[in-house]
Amino acid sequence: MTPTFTLRAIVFCSLLSAFPLPVSSQTLVERLGYSADTKLIVVHADDLGETHSVNAAAIKALEGRTINSASLMVPCPWFPEIADYAKSHPDADFGLHLTLTSERIYYRWGPVAPSQKVSSLLDQNGYFHHDWEANAHIDAREVEVELRAQIERALAMGVRPTHLDSHQYRLIFNGKELFDAMLRVAHEYKLPIFVTRDWFADHPYLQASLGPDDIVLDHTVTVEAGLPPEKWAEFYLAALKNLAPGVTEFVIHPGYDDDELRAATRERPTWGAAWRQRDFDFFTSNQFREILAQQKIKLITWRELARASKPK
Amino acid sequence: MTPTFTLRAIVFCSLLSAFPLPVSSQTLVERLGYSADTKLIVVHADDLGETHSVNAAAIKALEGRTINSASLMVPCPWFPEIADYAKSHPDADFGLHLTLTSERIYYRWGPVAPSQKVSSLLDQNGYFHHDWEANAHIDAREVEVELRAQIERALAMGVRPTHLDSHQYRLIFNGKELFDAMLRVAHEYKLPIFVTRDWFADHPYLQASLGPDDIVLDHTVTVEAGLPPEKWAEFYLAALKNLAPGVTEFVIHPGYDDDELRAATRERPTWGAAWRQRDFDFFTSNQFREILAQQKIKLITWRELARASKPK
Repeated sequence: MTPTFTLRAIVFCSLLSAFPLPVSSQTLVERLGYSADTKLIVVHADDLGETHSVNAAAIKALEGRTINSASLMVPCPWFPEIADYAKSHPDADFGLHLTLTSERIYYRWGPVAPSQKVSSLLDQNGYFHHDWEANAHIDAREVEVELRAQIERALAMGVRPTHLDSHQYRLIFNGKELFDAMLRVAHEYKLPIFVTRDWFADHPYLQASLGPDDIVLDHTVTVEAGLPPEKWAEFYLAALKNLAPGVTEFVIHPGYDDDELRAATRERPTWGAAWRQRDFDFFTSNQFREILAQQKIKLITWRELARASKPK
Repeated sequence: MTPTFTLRAIVFCSLLSAFPLPVSSQTLVERLGYSADTKLIVVHADDLGETHSVNAAAIKALEGRTINSASLMVPCPWFPEIADYAKSHPDADFGLHLTLTSERIYYRWGPVAPSQKVSSLLDQNGYFHHDWEANAHIDAREVEVELRAQIERALAMGVRPTHLDSHQYRLIFNGKELFDAMLRVAHEYKLPIFVTRDWFADHPYLQASLGPDDIVLDHTVTVEAGLPPEKWAEFYLAALKNLAPGVTEFVIHPGYDDDELRAATRERPTWGAAWRQRDFDFFTSNQFREILAQQKIKLITWRELARASKPK
């Protein structure tokens, strides 16, 4: 955040206190103190804590300041490494990547809550389910127990999260009951959650559950399975050239294409080691820096977005 | 095991059936059908499942056939990888490295049993204790619950263990109560445990608890903290040149000195990445093969040792 922006945000907040406005009439960028045509992006690394390779790549990219936000998987074995980093870098924009699945085969993790209290989330060996089959009964009360346990462990280990999001969007795209569980927990801990307007048409319960004080981003961009490796930069460059005004989160997955990550992800290429190396390479490139400048796109973090969540 | 040995073992077992001998009057090598001056070694890799680096190095060394036995840490994140390997290599000599601690800082794991049932084993964040402080109360009943849970998960995931041993010797050197818990579980699952006569003087309860049908190795060799890196080969060569007759387990810790293992072990050099690379290097070297031949030392596995546990 630039000093100019800080000043504008403070002025804006003061005005809000004096003259409360109907918040819903403003766009998010306006609530943040920008003109409606401003293009803001969060460059957000997912899955920190999952492997050392992902932690190391994300830290490198964050310190290069083109990736500016990330979220951490509390149940994962390398969470202590990134929690330690978060503790010693309290200004870093770290959320929690609430995790209810263990989607790989050779490298796995389980719940933070006592397993007996979250049995619908576990497979026969005690790990989180590899996937949620169509007939899986995921108990929303158990989900809430696990979400609280993840947040409590993060807090106990010194992490001060700026936001919450959902690993594999499990809490977003699986019906109102799970989304409401996430939202309840988010409200209790006073943390914004990652939701965009893009999702409302397909999942109307999102809009129905969200209140006027909840932050809703405008758009999100992420690489989907099937994009040929050689099209990576082209995909992101096109997305940035055609970026709509508003706040857009780029959900990316940086990692190093090294022995650990190759082994952990070897059963399928999607979100695998080479995929993650490509994300790392693009978002730490000069090409990325240059297009941000060229397109007058500004970076924003969840710490800054949170200030728009509730007029004070 | 050579065909010759198989024949001798069968003959020996048949004789035992016909004329039951007082087993305690024989040494272990004699029970195995060898002359009393025979030198047998198990070259045993510890800590499989802990990291990918350790799994990969151990598999490479096992396939080179100089390391011939290993044990697996069920609670660890990379256990699924080595369990998958064990399942597809049913002849490999894999035991379970019963684990009750999570001794690193940046990379950690917790129990297999429901956490509420093993709370004395857990730290405030739900991981196994980093260490057992002098005043820690480790509940032996909870230990037994966790040991059974580890064995049951291994069985459920297709591992058929040949033996049990104890990560950091926690179950061996911490009093009769914990050792008896391990022994009870071992008897129940009909698995030999790694104990040597070397330990009896300092821990007399070991001998007191063991029965005539339990296998007791004669000696063990392992590198202790403080050995300068340049002395590694010298240490092992001296141990092999001066090897006493009987069965000796070389407890070694192969791994690759790579990014993952360096990060996982970076807070201290003991049993760290460089340490494990040195073990890998020595036990896959021609130097090691040559001294085995020169000293007429034979390799033996736990699968073979188990045949000496109980006259049939």
